[in-house]
Amino acid sequence: MDTPEFDQVIQAARRIRPFVRRTPLLDFPSLDDIAGCRVLLKCENLQYGGAFKLRGATNAVQALTEAEAAAGVATHSSGNHGTALSLAAKARNIPCTVVMPDNSVKSKIANVREAGGTVVFCAPTQAAREQTLHEIATESGAVVIPPYDHAMVISGQGTAALEMLEQSPDLDMIVVPIGGGGLMAGTLLAASGQENPVTVVGAEPAGADDALQSLQRRERVVDVVPNTISDGLRATIGELNFAMFLEHRLEHIVAVDDDATSAAMALLWRHTGMIIEPSSATVVAALLAEPELFGGRKVGCIITGRNVDLDAETLARVAS
Amino acid sequence: MDTPEFDQVIQAARRIRPFVRRTPLLDFPSLDDIAGCRVLLKCENLQYGGAFKLRGATNAVQALTEAEAAAGVATHSSGNHGTALSLAAKARNIPCTVVMPDNSVKSKIANVREAGGTVVFCAPTQAAREQTLHEIATESGAVVIPPYDHAMVISGQGTAALEMLEQSPDLDMIVVPIGGGGLMAGTLLAASGQENPVTVVGAEPAGADDALQSLQRRERVVDVVPNTISDGLRATIGELNFAMFLEHRLEHIVAVDDDATSAAMALLWRHTGMIIEPSSATVVAALLAEPELFGGRKVGCIITGRNVDLDAETLARVAS
Repeated sequence: MDTPEFDQVIQAARRIRPFVRRTPLLDFPSLDDIAGCRVLLKCENLQYGGAFKLRGATNAVQALTEAEAAAGVATHSSGNHGTALSLAAKARNIPCTVVMPDNSVKSKIANVREAGGTVVFCAPTQAAREQTLHEIATESGAVVIPPYDHAMVISGQGTAALEMLEQSPDLDMIVVPIGGGGLMAGTLLAASGQENPVTVVGAEPAGADDALQSLQRRERVVDVVPNTISDGLRATIGELNFAMFLEHRLEHIVAVDDDATSAAMALLWRHTGMIIEPSSATVVAALLAEPELFGGRKVGCIITGRNVDLDAETLARVAS
Repeated sequence: MDTPEFDQVIQAARRIRPFVRRTPLLDFPSLDDIAGCRVLLKCENLQYGGAFKLRGATNAVQALTEAEAAAGVATHSSGNHGTALSLAAKARNIPCTVVMPDNSVKSKIANVREAGGTVVFCAPTQAAREQTLHEIATESGAVVIPPYDHAMVISGQGTAALEMLEQSPDLDMIVVPIGGGGLMAGTLLAASGQENPVTVVGAEPAGADDALQSLQRRERVVDVVPNTISDGLRATIGELNFAMFLEHRLEHIVAVDDDATSAAMALLWRHTGMIIEPSSATVVAALLAEPELFGGRKVGCIITGRNVDLDAETLARVAS
């Protein structure tokens, strides 16, 4: 698999422009006071489909030749990538099948269906996801667009940081959550082409810290059994993604426990008035966990998505 | 009192630019499907202080002479105007006192205090609000900046529609909620200076429909006892505001009951991922209530604020 370069993020930005929202970069002064740094939120929670994932999916779908696209696309996803790929396929008028673990968040299943995707359930393991997807692709001839371990997906995700650096060129740092590592790899790419150096930091749930463990051991750790409320970050770090972490010398990954993520989520809902999913709240939990790393700096946080069930459990976390 | 003109909205936009956010105008395709029209949300819920009210308050405070500003400002408010005036006063480094009914929403009281305002409670009647405010102003020499019945406040509120029409010049209609009528009067002003005609429509709670009754009788009705969950819309229609409704030939006010507002609020939370207060949800309830008025049109809705307690009652309304 070819490692993408900075130029591919530029190309992706051009390719996806008609289909994705240029999301606002917003400040909330009361958050600055609490975090002790200047916080700018790149609001991918306001992206079409409710997550940054539309960027990578659209880049991959739009880059297919007519022949490749003819039989449609397929993927496995705990939710946001599935919705994104369904929307991207709809924009190109081709079918999309999404393999989802049968414990997926209800709202994410509904979102995939509303976006026009066909949902196929599987057991909630990485092996079951891959096996089921393989069978579907073989049978239908659909092109598999994996959620993160894919050069076009990575370059597409990198456009979020690229835009953010256009909107605020003097950021000192960018913080993004790490699940499979697509957004992180893309962000590292986007940062690599900047004149002003910008430090990229990862946020990861302590209960799914395979990226942190991989970085510490300098080899990909694939045997972590995820246990976290951050349902978007349960995936195992991708091969290409991890290779890019090393290539671009990613240094900092902050692991945050679910209590910290819950608290950050409640804080975000209250201070921004936006429904932000746990996976996104990890970045603000990271700011609060490591004041010596972020204090006084200008920090761009990618708020990755808004897809969370408004159920009793979630609402109890944010209730005042 | 002088009736403001379109030019004063232009001046207000220039005056407040350094202090207010140019809020995004966002579309959510799934809302279009449900409403049967093209819906664009002017997200004043993402405004500093959480509401459009910062526009009018900032315009009024920044327009004061040094001598006028010296003793600070004061107002009465169920919440959003109080926060806004406190922020506007802080930006000019002058004190601000806010008279609030003692049944105000908790989060709004907290917001006023966080914004630097001093809260003074009174009984929850219009008379008690005005009496208490009068006493404070007489004693302190503070300039009273009323929440809506004031030319500078009205011109300031008009900048929300002005911006929206810059962001999307081909809107057919604009829908705004009516409480005291400051936003509506300002919106009528902003629309009055446009080359393309745009129809302005009001949304009002059925339980506080003094503006609708006033329009029907062609005279200001001041004896409605408000009974609605839309706490930001309980105020009585202002004198200048109502005069401007007539001058600018406001034709349509859609009254929506609280069940419709609740349902619209849940819909907005789910489809936009934003925490939107009941007062704002009335505009979307209006869209759904009158499909023959809005169907197929391009409709700009001013989403006025995000300030709602995340308490059991509110969360029960939006829970899935």
